[in-house]
Amino acid sequence: MGRIAAILTDWFEDSEYTEPVEAFEKAGHTVVTVGPEAGKTVTGKKSGTEVKIEKSAAEVSPEDFDALLIPGGFSPDKLRVDEKAVAFAKNFMEENKPVFAICHAPQLLITADVLRGRTLTGYTSIIQDIKNAGAEFVDREVVVDGNLVSSRNPGDLPSFIEACLKKLS
Amino acid sequence: MGRIAAILTDWFEDSEYTEPVEAFEKAGHTVVTVGPEAGKTVTGKKSGTEVKIEKSAAEVSPEDFDALLIPGGFSPDKLRVDEKAVAFAKNFMEENKPVFAICHAPQLLITADVLRGRTLTGYTSIIQDIKNAGAEFVDREVVVDGNLVSSRNPGDLPSFIEACLKKLS
Repeated sequence: MGRIAAILTDWFEDSEYTEPVEAFEKAGHTVVTVGPEAGKTVTGKKSGTEVKIEKSAAEVSPEDFDALLIPGGFSPDKLRVDEKAVAFAKNFMEENKPVFAICHAPQLLITADVLRGRTLTGYTSIIQDIKNAGAEFVDREVVVDGNLVSSRNPGDLPSFIEACLKKLS
Repeated sequence: MGRIAAILTDWFEDSEYTEPVEAFEKAGHTVVTVGPEAGKTVTGKKSGTEVKIEKSAAEVSPEDFDALLIPGGFSPDKLRVDEKAVAFAKNFMEENKPVFAICHAPQLLITADVLRGRTLTGYTSIIQDIKNAGAEFVDREVVVDGNLVSSRNPGDLPSFIEACLKKLS
């Protein structure tokens, strides 16, 4: 089964972490939380979900994982100022490993400058940023473009999770 | 004296609203709060500052104002999904009226697609978005490019306010 890194920090969109992780673990996959600081407990934006960060972005290597989950909320805005987090996400894209990006998650990929020529969706507020990054924006509940699975918001979670699980199988 | 529209909604960066507004009013200018919904009280991200929105973006015209202040925080991310707010900010830029943008404020201007060929600064997390929008990013406490005054974060407020007041005089 697969080993998935979930990269997040404070003000993540609760359900965009909890629901995919529950589904991944139920399917037998392992999820490891990664963030700017190992040992820190980070808090969800809407419901205050607490998640302990197991590994710092500085101490992990994409080689140790089969896929990357990037939950949305305001967590990606905070992650994109962390060079190690940006480099970690960039490496998944460059190695063509599965990346699961929902809501504001593309912000991290924009800073990593890995969206040129790609097709994806994302939260309404960042549509122009996605287009300006050289990508094609599609307004659909889930978009699969090679290794990249993307969705717009929590309402898309069932389709998002289904597409992620398919990519992991 | 000048009449300034301050456009904001929930999770604005408290000091990026309170400090410029205090300085503008002390100098004799008038500030009118504009947001997605008139009559709503919006709340700051860090200190919970409460601000009542006087006018909705739909009911105001840039002709009624001499300048636009866009505080940062996560307020601009929320404003950029409001078509009327985007159109309001776009009009100030197109009419070459003073626009005071700090922190995440350029996000609203990116969605308005008015930054091509401009020079500005902004919060670290959105540097790539500013560049991808066709603008030149400069890492300085305040950047004045024609009608556009921009700063990076609350630490730049003294220089930001000084440059804004100069533009209003």
